Amino acid sequence: MKGTMLYGPRDVRFEERLDPEIIEPTDAILQISAACVCGSDLWSYRGIAEVTQPQAMGHEYCGIVQEVGSEVRHIKPGQFVVGSFWASDNTCPICQAGYQSRCVDARGMGGAQAGWLRVPLADGTLVATPELPPDDLIPSLVSASDVLGTGWFGADAAEAGPGKTVAVVGDGAVGLCAVLAARQMGAERIIAMSRHEDRQKLALEFGATDIVTERGDEGVARIKDMTDGLGAHSVVEAVGTQESMMQAMQSARPGGHVGFVGVFHGMQLPAMDLFWSTVHLHGGPAPVRQCLPHLIDLIWSRKINPGKVFDLTLPLEQAAEGYRAMDERRAIKALLRP
Amino acid sequence: MKGTMLYGPRDVRFEERLDPEIIEPTDAILQISAACVCGSDLWSYRGIAEVTQPQAMGHEYCGIVQEVGSEVRHIKPGQFVVGSFWASDNTCPICQAGYQSRCVDARGMGGAQAGWLRVPLADGTLVATPELPPDDLIPSLVSASDVLGTGWFGADAAEAGPGKTVAVVGDGAVGLCAVLAARQMGAERIIAMSRHEDRQKLALEFGATDIVTERGDEGVARIKDMTDGLGAHSVVEAVGTQESMMQAMQSARPGGHVGFVGVFHGMQLPAMDLFWSTVHLHGGPAPVRQCLPHLIDLIWSRKINPGKVFDLTLPLEQAAEGYRAMDERRAIKALLRP
Repeated sequence: MKGTMLYGPRDVRFEERLDPEIIEPTDAILQISAACVCGSDLWSYRGIAEVTQPQAMGHEYCGIVQEVGSEVRHIKPGQFVVGSFWASDNTCPICQAGYQSRCVDARGMGGAQAGWLRVPLADGTLVATPELPPDDLIPSLVSASDVLGTGWFGADAAEAGPGKTVAVVGDGAVGLCAVLAARQMGAERIIAMSRHEDRQKLALEFGATDIVTERGDEGVARIKDMTDGLGAHSVVEAVGTQESMMQAMQSARPGGHVGFVGVFHGMQLPAMDLFWSTVHLHGGPAPVRQCLPHLIDLIWSRKINPGKVFDLTLPLEQAAEGYRAMDERRAIKALLRP
Repeated sequence: MKGTMLYGPRDVRFEERLDPEIIEPTDAILQISAACVCGSDLWSYRGIAEVTQPQAMGHEYCGIVQEVGSEVRHIKPGQFVVGSFWASDNTCPICQAGYQSRCVDARGMGGAQAGWLRVPLADGTLVATPELPPDDLIPSLVSASDVLGTGWFGADAAEAGPGKTVAVVGDGAVGLCAVLAARQMGAERIIAMSRHEDRQKLALEFGATDIVTERGDEGVARIKDMTDGLGAHSVVEAVGTQESMMQAMQSARPGGHVGFVGVFHGMQLPAMDLFWSTVHLHGGPAPVRQCLPHLIDLIWSRKINPGKVFDLTLPLEQAAEGYRAMDERRAIKALLRP
């Protein structure tokens, strides 16, 4: 089969790879229906995270089960499934507590931008849809694999809910999905911080009540202005830079909650600022598997349409163009179809 | 009256000061029954926090109300009261949410190591005992002003409770009070991290079930060993150094809760470690006023005896010796009686 590989900064190749096979008895092999380019991949694409050896790209996926190992009990060949970007057993105490991304046997996924994919710990990682989905649901279903699940976790970690004012720092696909999640969680007011018109429009469509275009200290001042000088109850950080994290912490009121899902790289957090902020801080790699059944329900019943974050759809062999478009911010997120 | 002043590193003087007076109509004047030396004062005593001008010392206090301003409604002359080390109005949205230390009108207290003290925002800051307390309750009552309230907040921020394993990093008075708090909150297992025999003994008396003497990576490894390799559900950080904070974060399991109440000075937190830890982080200056009524109840009914953290009692004029004893770790905490 063919799949995408990252060889170094801005060097994405679509090339022949070995077909995946069952290695462990808990594995499943999927025929990929859709994959996508993740904002977090841009760290290595841009050379900020070092690429020490060629990487098989893609950790967001959905598809049809082709084959399962001898110990797979619940996932069956022929099912359409969505999986998390972390494989997990879903039975250990950490998984049971809802932190499947930190499962005692967690495995990072990769190589989903291909025709076929091996998924370890299939029973604990994959969730089947009620039946084969209509094609127009595919973008939303693949979004649940990471970007929607991550935005959802961010909003959940920020304790978005009824009566709350929620600010979202970052207007990438994860930030936009956090807006959608906050709306589903019943937040009273949802402030999207964005200076790009197309993203503002989608944020409003996803449920934002207000748009703030200012950043940094000015952005913080605007949020304070809008909240009687107190700050937001909940803030989602969906960028992963020092500036965005400080903006998020300072935009939250004392006792408020900051959910952070942007991936940090080498950043230091001034502990004194954290101390005096008196906020709750929670985040990290999203345990998508925990909310995946609920997200699939919402998508299946067409209550949400997170697939709208894909404003570029490409055949898989043009994956390199998907990376370029996201790097240059010509696209919010690129969907890849084998 | 006379009171203590810090002029610079290791320079504590007991000297004549102006008698406090009602300045604002919401003020009260207390005759101090007991004050104490705070571990957080050691930062400036040791010269780690700069002393730019002489400081009136002492922010932990209890005493008898002598006089109140014209707008004080609930606090009456003659009452015995305990106050928080932050003055607060207790009515703003931040106070109502339980974060009185970050009240929109919060005022840091100082100057309690004296015969008399002015307390701003008296109705929002002070809590009266049912009647004048017997003398043996005074140490516990003054502990509620900060060190008990802070340990309590740390355990609460770490979500100590039934079924939980709670680790406490730091065996100072705050850490010991966090052990006591975790016990009151019904924690199943309470691990005190301490290498001082007298403090270990008090930790066990306060409800610790286990003692760990190792620190840093070895301490983390011991906590993991004791929790099936997972880490504690709840960790209280009661030191305020880079090492202790990392020890706390790494001792908690993914999805666990770290409550931090040690005061940081110029420390940086590696954001990547925070990201991958997937813990909940909450802390800062304790909103003692929130739990003060409950703490006074527990002390009044003799269910807890936090006053045991005072292993040195001195007349107020010997305050300098109290600082020396705590600096040299000859005392856990020094009680000062005018």
